[in-house]
Amino acid sequence: MAKKFVYLFSEGDASMRNLLGGKGANLAEMTKLGMPVPQGFTISTEACTQYYEDGEVINDDIQAQIMEYIDKMEEITGKKFGDLENPLLVSVRSGARASMPGMMDTILNLGLNEEVVEVMAQKSGNPRWAYDCYRRFIQMYSDVVMEVGKAYFEELIDKMKEEKGVTQDVDLTADDLKTLAEQFKAEYKSKVGSDFPRDAKEQLMGAVKAVFRSWNNPRAIVYRRMNDIPGSWGTAVNVQMMAFGNMSDTSGTGVAFTRNPSTGEKALFGEYLINAQGEDVVAGVRTPKPIAKLAEDMPDVYQQFVDIAQKLEDHYRDMQDMEYTIENGKLYMLQTRNGKRTAAAALKIAVDLVAEGKISKEDALLQVDPKQLDALLHPTFNADALKSAKVLCKGLPASPGAGAGKVYFTAEEAVAAADKGEKVILVRQETSPEDIEGMNAAQGIMTARGGMTSHAAVVARGMGRCCVAGVDAIKVNEAEKTFTCGDKVFKEGDVISLDGSTGNVYEGAIETQEANISGDFEKFMEWADSVRTLQVRTNADTPRDAKQAAAFGAEGIGLCRTEHMFFEESRIAAVREMIVSKTVEQREKALAKILPMQQGDFEELYRALEGHPVVIRFLDPPLHEFVPQNDDDIKALADEMGLSFEELKATCDGLKEFNPMLGHRGCRLAVTYPEIAKMQTTAVIQAALKVNSEGMAVTPEIMIPLVGDINELKYVKKVVCDTADAIIAEAGSDLKYEVGTMIEIPRAALLADEIAKEAQFFSFGTNDLTQMTFGLSRDDAGKFLDDYYAKKIYESDPFAKLDQDGVGKLVKMAAELGRSVRPDITLGICGEHGGDPSTIEFCHNVGLNYVSCSPFRVPIARLAAAQAKIKQDRAAN
Amino acid sequence: MAKKFVYLFSEGDASMRNLLGGKGANLAEMTKLGMPVPQGFTISTEACTQYYEDGEVINDDIQAQIMEYIDKMEEITGKKFGDLENPLLVSVRSGARASMPGMMDTILNLGLNEEVVEVMAQKSGNPRWAYDCYRRFIQMYSDVVMEVGKAYFEELIDKMKEEKGVTQDVDLTADDLKTLAEQFKAEYKSKVGSDFPRDAKEQLMGAVKAVFRSWNNPRAIVYRRMNDIPGSWGTAVNVQMMAFGNMSDTSGTGVAFTRNPSTGEKALFGEYLINAQGEDVVAGVRTPKPIAKLAEDMPDVYQQFVDIAQKLEDHYRDMQDMEYTIENGKLYMLQTRNGKRTAAAALKIAVDLVAEGKISKEDALLQVDPKQLDALLHPTFNADALKSAKVLCKGLPASPGAGAGKVYFTAEEAVAAADKGEKVILVRQETSPEDIEGMNAAQGIMTARGGMTSHAAVVARGMGRCCVAGVDAIKVNEAEKTFTCGDKVFKEGDVISLDGSTGNVYEGAIETQEANISGDFEKFMEWADSVRTLQVRTNADTPRDAKQAAAFGAEGIGLCRTEHMFFEESRIAAVREMIVSKTVEQREKALAKILPMQQGDFEELYRALEGHPVVIRFLDPPLHEFVPQNDDDIKALADEMGLSFEELKATCDGLKEFNPMLGHRGCRLAVTYPEIAKMQTTAVIQAALKVNSEGMAVTPEIMIPLVGDINELKYVKKVVCDTADAIIAEAGSDLKYEVGTMIEIPRAALLADEIAKEAQFFSFGTNDLTQMTFGLSRDDAGKFLDDYYAKKIYESDPFAKLDQDGVGKLVKMAAELGRSVRPDITLGICGEHGGDPSTIEFCHNVGLNYVSCSPFRVPIARLAAAQAKIKQDRAAN
Repeated sequence: MAKKFVYLFSEGDASMRNLLGGKGANLAEMTKLGMPVPQGFTISTEACTQYYEDGEVINDDIQAQIMEYIDKMEEITGKKFGDLENPLLVSVRSGARASMPGMMDTILNLGLNEEVVEVMAQKSGNPRWAYDCYRRFIQMYSDVVMEVGKAYFEELIDKMKEEKGVTQDVDLTADDLKTLAEQFKAEYKSKVGSDFPRDAKEQLMGAVKAVFRSWNNPRAIVYRRMNDIPGSWGTAVNVQMMAFGNMSDTSGTGVAFTRNPSTGEKALFGEYLINAQGEDVVAGVRTPKPIAKLAEDMPDVYQQFVDIAQKLEDHYRDMQDMEYTIENGKLYMLQTRNGKRTAAAALKIAVDLVAEGKISKEDALLQVDPKQLDALLHPTFNADALKSAKVLCKGLPASPGAGAGKVYFTAEEAVAAADKGEKVILVRQETSPEDIEGMNAAQGIMTARGGMTSHAAVVARGMGRCCVAGVDAIKVNEAEKTFTCGDKVFKEGDVISLDGSTGNVYEGAIETQEANISGDFEKFMEWADSVRTLQVRTNADTPRDAKQAAAFGAEGIGLCRTEHMFFEESRIAAVREMIVSKTVEQREKALAKILPMQQGDFEELYRALEGHPVVIRFLDPPLHEFVPQNDDDIKALADEMGLSFEELKATCDGLKEFNPMLGHRGCRLAVTYPEIAKMQTTAVIQAALKVNSEGMAVTPEIMIPLVGDINELKYVKKVVCDTADAIIAEAGSDLKYEVGTMIEIPRAALLADEIAKEAQFFSFGTNDLTQMTFGLSRDDAGKFLDDYYAKKIYESDPFAKLDQDGVGKLVKMAAELGRSVRPDITLGICGEHGGDPSTIEFCHNVGLNYVSCSPFRVPIARLAAAQAKIKQDRAAN
Repeated sequence: MAKKFVYLFSEGDASMRNLLGGKGANLAEMTKLGMPVPQGFTISTEACTQYYEDGEVINDDIQAQIMEYIDKMEEITGKKFGDLENPLLVSVRSGARASMPGMMDTILNLGLNEEVVEVMAQKSGNPRWAYDCYRRFIQMYSDVVMEVGKAYFEELIDKMKEEKGVTQDVDLTADDLKTLAEQFKAEYKSKVGSDFPRDAKEQLMGAVKAVFRSWNNPRAIVYRRMNDIPGSWGTAVNVQMMAFGNMSDTSGTGVAFTRNPSTGEKALFGEYLINAQGEDVVAGVRTPKPIAKLAEDMPDVYQQFVDIAQKLEDHYRDMQDMEYTIENGKLYMLQTRNGKRTAAAALKIAVDLVAEGKISKEDALLQVDPKQLDALLHPTFNADALKSAKVLCKGLPASPGAGAGKVYFTAEEAVAAADKGEKVILVRQETSPEDIEGMNAAQGIMTARGGMTSHAAVVARGMGRCCVAGVDAIKVNEAEKTFTCGDKVFKEGDVISLDGSTGNVYEGAIETQEANISGDFEKFMEWADSVRTLQVRTNADTPRDAKQAAAFGAEGIGLCRTEHMFFEESRIAAVREMIVSKTVEQREKALAKILPMQQGDFEELYRALEGHPVVIRFLDPPLHEFVPQNDDDIKALADEMGLSFEELKATCDGLKEFNPMLGHRGCRLAVTYPEIAKMQTTAVIQAALKVNSEGMAVTPEIMIPLVGDINELKYVKKVVCDTADAIIAEAGSDLKYEVGTMIEIPRAALLADEIAKEAQFFSFGTNDLTQMTFGLSRDDAGKFLDDYYAKKIYESDPFAKLDQDGVGKLVKMAAELGRSVRPDITLGICGEHGGDPSTIEFCHNVGLNYVSCSPFRVPIARLAAAQAKIKQDRAAN
């Protein structure tokens, strides 16, 4: 039997969302519930994927099934396509599994031509309505099916209104609209090269194809990437008998929510327009009335709608977003779906629904998108102020939040200005570790280069600073302290505003409002904590970050990058001295200067975490990151250190590498310079002894980075243990400590059973693991990843969302191999992915013990971990 | 029961080599054969590994077993350690599984002290002999056990000879030697700080420890790395009763081979010294006599030795290298082993032994080390001329062979000088693809930077040019056209000589002799071909290389790197024009210029290979490799192309990447610029149509590089197939072609089942696969790999010898996954590893279809493939 591609609304229900799309499944469900739904059929998502498999062709089988269902629809409605007695008009709408802006939305009034419209005009005695439908149809069809572009149609309407001396569309007469329809058809012909199609079935097939095609338009691809929607899903197409909101003054159309989508308040919220079709509400041509007004205009209809809305919310057990049309006093439901809402509303609705006894806590936890929580933790622009703001350019939304301030081009000047009380935006070509203090002092960071996981992005997210990265449109001239955007030149001190959640850059200052965590938040997060089994730790390098993360609920530090402590102004001199040392003795002398500072850092971190685990990663980046890059800075450093410029320059040049990512870094540094590992061990252990003597009970965890071979770990571990054991013995203490490793090199994952013999814990460093598994430098990939998205090679950024097929296979393999040798090994993830909900679900399912993410992602991770557990439990039942 | 760590010679045999080491197993075997062997015992290799496991301590159990075996030895010999009636003296010698220079060799006469020597002097009536033994023992023990250093001892001997007015050691009297022994002991005490040990058992334990320790001395580690000997094997220790060659004029000691190790000629070959101990022969203090002379000196002993030698060769079925001692007219055998030999001798001996009916062809194939064949294919220095040559400095033996000529510092000048008939050595900081013509014109290449798989090394091996890479000791100043080595400055035109097989660099010209492939070679290689199942292809980018490889027996091209064709002077302009193009149209215009040249190349390649398969890899390197790097060259190019300097400079800068190895290269280029893949496809297909119209039957194989995701391959394959199919259809041909991919990114290996759905063949690019699996840049690793060897973290260079544990796991996984989806998929390897015998054995065992290596490695690969098959067959039986 041939596969079934088309379903009447009466053949489906809400459970068939994958096949019928969200809109189709809910139309079927409303039909089943006996609600007033104009009848029709849904062409399945499988028809869409078949269309792509067949090379963007609707095959004969699917065409035949569509024709068959038109016949059935005609039977049900008693109307016929193109019939001059009782013509059938339909709407055609896309509907994917997940609500997805960016695709073709709607074509109304399909089925009209010169003859049919005339029949409708005569039979209804309402020629204005008939011609209004006709011109709308030509306009929409030309735009979305043939991509003629709607600007010229709008112009024609404006011209007509001017001629007739009216301001509202509704004041145009039937004749005016008839004339417009003729003009529209002429425009169509001039652009498309053929007559506007007269045959309803031809019109329908064109519209279906346009919906399928729109699944892969650039906006849809971008939206899917942002929202983790697979390109393989496809969209369904809904063909539905028209209900006419533009028939009379007892007709209308509108949208409504069962609760307020901004605040979550429990009250019907929405609006409607009298004598209008759907797109008028969206287009904003007329100002709609609030839905409460409908109680006055049409009390019966209003009451019916209130009942239906309540029934739908109870049925779906979530706030509903509904579309409806009133045709001559009769209510029709055109759509219902779980409504989009702000983060604050999402929390309130979830908590209220539990309080109302409508859903369980687990349901409530599943109702909130973890990523939404971010908005509650960062400053945002004042919504009113934002309305009048002008977008200057756009970059990547690299770190959420909003900030405004004066532009500075170096970290030093940013710090100096901030010290004077100025609000500062740091603008850089790209940031490097030296910029950290400047980033910290700024309200926000903008970079011309770099992606979502560039240095700027990673560090800004860690700090909770907003950041817009990779702004292609600007050119930064750091020497002259300017940046240009198009013709505009911005100088030091000029004011801009950044929205790190959207990537928008604005000229001038926009007022911001501080983050505000309500009572619902705490209650909700407690529910999440009571459910989840996956621990959430944080990546924090400073006591400040650690305290912030602890306040957000972090249960320890999963990654402390010790090198970030090296860049502080008071320390960098000693660090550089260590790097340019020629002998072990010189190096040890420099390290001795760093030791007390590093020990102090660790003490503070331990105190900030109040006994929670602290994983300290030993020095990781290639040493060239610590030395100055340009001749002037080298000269200055040479003077400071009493070296000749040539000598220091040669040393700095000698540190340069072809592929620093694959170079002399991580544990390779400790192999070459074991004295660095000795110093760091001493700092870690002495700090622990110190705070434990004050009554804490810290068990330090030392993490060796970039291990690819068991012998590397053995060698460095021996240095660590020899050093630590001697200090502990001398102190007469029984301090325990652990030594583990990052799994961030493919080879370490492949040989994790070997590695686990020496490592007491693994932490998956999925940033580097992704780079190496893909053979892809995250600093360079930005140049061509857009081609990859456009050509549908990648659906998402593998540095933002863990590649579960490839990198995930290694993670799974390593987890299994590690446990096979050491059943109680602690497994965690500390890459940027640790804050991504889909990755967190993967980590939960693979059985990791914890995820570690930047402080501001801790709440997201807590919720995502709870959701993963609930989904897993439900799948098992 | 405790583990047995010690074995009498009479307890072992030749099959126990792993446990007893080569020397111990053969001493046991000779004992079993009833040959005159001074008796003793062997401390097993397991005792050595136990010593390291215990933290470099000989544990009590092993010490006790050694003591027990001393008792047994005393019982067998009737002599006792330290006995004043009949004292036992022994030799202590190391003996690993594989013969391994670099370790401690021998201590003779162990057991002596002041009293024992006096007893020996009196009892033997030969005090000169007794004191000669004593001073030798103190000297050797001080040197090898206590590392006192032997220079001062030699000085004392020279001083004594001067005082006594004699020139030969043998002319020193007993009293002289007694005085020397006292002086030696004083020297020992002053250096070591304690008295020279008097107790024989203490002496023995010290010597055993010294042998174990020497297993890990730097020279041994280097030797093991060069020869693929695992560090985990350990060495055995042989303790043997002394036979004294220094007792009288009817005593002596010598070495001999059953056949000539230089030529393979079938005749006893060797030498001996009368009245001497073993080290005298090696030290060259006196000139030994040829062994034939022994027939005159001691005819009976000679005949006995000839018989034993023949018996040993027949027994071991291979040429033997023997050590023997004659004590007062009685022959003792101290060692036998398969003798080292030159490549030419190896072939002759193997072929002769088959002709003599002593071994099978398979045995013969196993007898020759594949790596040795290299020496037959390249020029070498004239051995006599080399004797007087002075090594200037040393680098990595990056490409074998020898060359001498005038130094030039740029490719252009090297080409110009070679055109004038000069012999040229190209000296560069490091080479880049632009240098290819200069490398081709040179006799040899020297670089200051880069490892065994640097550009210079890889390209030189491909061309068969000798290359010494990574010569740390020189500083190249390309601007001034000089290089310095220590205080010496070499200018353009100065003459040096390079030995690419040893890494030696010599001042001045050394005479070379051409490669000479004898008749044995061909016969031998035919045997190899008749046995092996693994195909051998070559990596060749030019018709010249392809012809060379075909002459060496290559059965096709496994890798043609098309980009190498882009660097030729006549083409680079068009290539650069393509790269700096701003639009598809501009790019296509430039590509149209390249097309006919590339098509011509492919036609010539097809013709050179005469119908064998040719795998053509599409453009792989990042584009910045093709554009000039410094401002002057950019200016020149800008003028040439009619662009402004600033514009071109910006374009060139824009191509720079942080980690080019992980950047915009491989199939990523084809995704961004599909028109490049179109051009290359057109060239490949049109060339095939052309040569096939001339009567050939070529099936082109197109290989897409750097695939990490099935969608990349799908996208590029579609471009290839659309282009190819159109050309083939237009030509009315039925030409077949294949599209496959490199597996060189870990993710591709992990998801090889997906990839195999689209790829008709896989070729493992183990260079990149190793870089990414290890997270290690081969261009940067040189800086710290020495630390890795010194600290025993790596035993071999993963870019030279495939890492079978990690990278090999991926290769195996990918081969299995690929075959699971496409059972007839062709699997090959085309990384540098393809010419490494241990890797070839791995490839055979994993079931690959072919290996592809540089032309000069083809014979090596053919033999290694045969050996792999024989070993596999034998293991199965």
